[in-house]
Amino acid sequence: MAQQHLDPTDSTAGSPPGLPTAPEPGGAPTAEALACYLRAQATEFLRALRLHRETGGAGHGTEESVDAARALRRSARRISGTAHTFRPLLDETWSAELCPELAWLSGTLAREHACQACLERLLLALHRLSGTAVLPAQPTEEAAGGRTDRGNLTVGAAKAGALLERQLTLARTRAHSTALQALGSARFHAVADKVAVLASDVPLAPGAAMDLTPLAAAARERLTDAVAALPLVTAGSPYNAEALIHGLSPDPAPHPQDAPWHQVRLLLRLHRYASEVLDGTDSSAHVRLSAAGQALDRHRDASEAAAAAASAARTPRIAPATAYALGVLHADQRHEVEAARFAFQQAWQKQAVGAG
Amino acid sequence: MAQQHLDPTDSTAGSPPGLPTAPEPGGAPTAEALACYLRAQATEFLRALRLHRETGGAGHGTEESVDAARALRRSARRISGTAHTFRPLLDETWSAELCPELAWLSGTLAREHACQACLERLLLALHRLSGTAVLPAQPTEEAAGGRTDRGNLTVGAAKAGALLERQLTLARTRAHSTALQALGSARFHAVADKVAVLASDVPLAPGAAMDLTPLAAAARERLTDAVAALPLVTAGSPYNAEALIHGLSPDPAPHPQDAPWHQVRLLLRLHRYASEVLDGTDSSAHVRLSAAGQALDRHRDASEAAAAAASAARTPRIAPATAYALGVLHADQRHEVEAARFAFQQAWQKQAVGAG
Repeated sequence: MAQQHLDPTDSTAGSPPGLPTAPEPGGAPTAEALACYLRAQATEFLRALRLHRETGGAGHGTEESVDAARALRRSARRISGTAHTFRPLLDETWSAELCPELAWLSGTLAREHACQACLERLLLALHRLSGTAVLPAQPTEEAAGGRTDRGNLTVGAAKAGALLERQLTLARTRAHSTALQALGSARFHAVADKVAVLASDVPLAPGAAMDLTPLAAAARERLTDAVAALPLVTAGSPYNAEALIHGLSPDPAPHPQDAPWHQVRLLLRLHRYASEVLDGTDSSAHVRLSAAGQALDRHRDASEAAAAAASAARTPRIAPATAYALGVLHADQRHEVEAARFAFQQAWQKQAVGAG
Repeated sequence: MAQQHLDPTDSTAGSPPGLPTAPEPGGAPTAEALACYLRAQATEFLRALRLHRETGGAGHGTEESVDAARALRRSARRISGTAHTFRPLLDETWSAELCPELAWLSGTLAREHACQACLERLLLALHRLSGTAVLPAQPTEEAAGGRTDRGNLTVGAAKAGALLERQLTLARTRAHSTALQALGSARFHAVADKVAVLASDVPLAPGAAMDLTPLAAAARERLTDAVAALPLVTAGSPYNAEALIHGLSPDPAPHPQDAPWHQVRLLLRLHRYASEVLDGTDSSAHVRLSAAGQALDRHRDASEAAAAAASAARTPRIAPATAYALGVLHADQRHEVEAARFAFQQAWQKQAVGAG
């Protein structure tokens, strides 16, 4: 069944009729398995796009519209990632044209959700740190340069919450407009047309080798090599205080030490898609790797939230109490980054033992 | 030999002649072992006092003078703590009079050192966080309300360092004056006279039970009961994020969640002194417990440093960048508090297994 290939956490498992079926289990996986997976993902993409239009994707997101956008990103990532891993088996020009366009699309669609998730994460952390709800009561006070309660750390959390809400809501609104523009653009329609063709006709390369295993193994090797280059011994030692090092350094960009972890997150995803192509259903390796993947998602989210708190602290004319709260919040999220690395190390170790 | 009873980390192990010798090893420890320990500690107290006066305790501390003050605090704590644990074996009036006076003395003498250690810990942390030395270049700029570089987080670490240096140096200077006044006071001379008598004549209670073991066991039980009441399951789970909870709450006092840990630190110390009385030399239990004790020292130091950073952030008219750096620093030290609890849990678990 085609929906066996879909992400198991995907809530949209309704199977459109007439999809090609997966190859029989057993035997080496062939290019037909790849074609089958790509057709299923393309169909899912078109279904999500139709749903997104029907559920009012043009307005601010209803739950269905948010789900549809997520399903759209998911299938776009899978088509693009699978085409990348199995590139030698596919028509070269087709891959070179479609992959960057799908990456552009999923990146554009992801930004609105990322802003919202970042805001929720930061407000939750402020709530934990202050012992009170920090939803802003006077969201314009800060902007007006209000200086009441200066030096009073109590109000700092509330003011920091208001400031973050204002900044991240603005960013989300902008991302929403950008996503809407993208979905109405000629560029998007060209992508959608290509995906519509893919749903019935996968452009396999002429004379391509038929066994998928070596290419999937190469994707796995790229992942294990990148993991081997991570500072896992340090990460596995609790409270190593690495993540906050240089937390007050002048560089306004996200921490450079995070980049190799973000890279592993992407390689883990590519490995997972390749496993989906090969195994059809969730393999036990997939299940074992999901904890590692979740840790890296948390790593990415905390890294971005820490950067957002530091960025908010650079707002001109904020009160010292607000800046103090943002400093505590930044360090708290860097602490989360470190915790996520520890969790990844633990999950990866288990996965390695389980696989050995 | 009497100096067997002294703390092994004590650098001042010269043995004054004419001290009573410890009882033979083997057999139940008797009140004579207690008397021997107290005489040795009293002698050490008088030696440290003489050294402190000779090495210019009146001026700002030379290394010898600092060592002498430390030895003075150590012996004062041991006399007071031992008298507390074995109170039924000692003259009641004598204990009731001397113990609070020794606690006053060691507390007064400790404050100067604590201010210095707190400052060093915070400057070291700022250095780690900013990647640069944070010794203040312009220590008066902040006080004058200098607002250059507002919003520039880079200078925040340097300004925070300057602010902390100013505040904690002032506190240390005050503590130094208070300690000098104390050492010249009639109150202190009364304590020193009592300790001088103790060096030759320990006021054992008439008809006191001769076996020390039950009282030492009771001290150990008070420790294990207090440890059992600690949230050790949480502490043993890395990155539980407990220590920073309510880090932005309005209470300006040190975190109430720290108090039970501070209490265990004191009970562990009393247990260690009782072990010293009973075993003469370092027992293996003492060695096993030292890691636990070091973790609790670190817990106390980080807790106080976090409070100092939060307190500095309440200084009026500081720049937002300074407040931000102090917020990061506060959270970093609360992170250290959590790390110390984890280290204690690990050490205690090992100790429990080793003793079992």
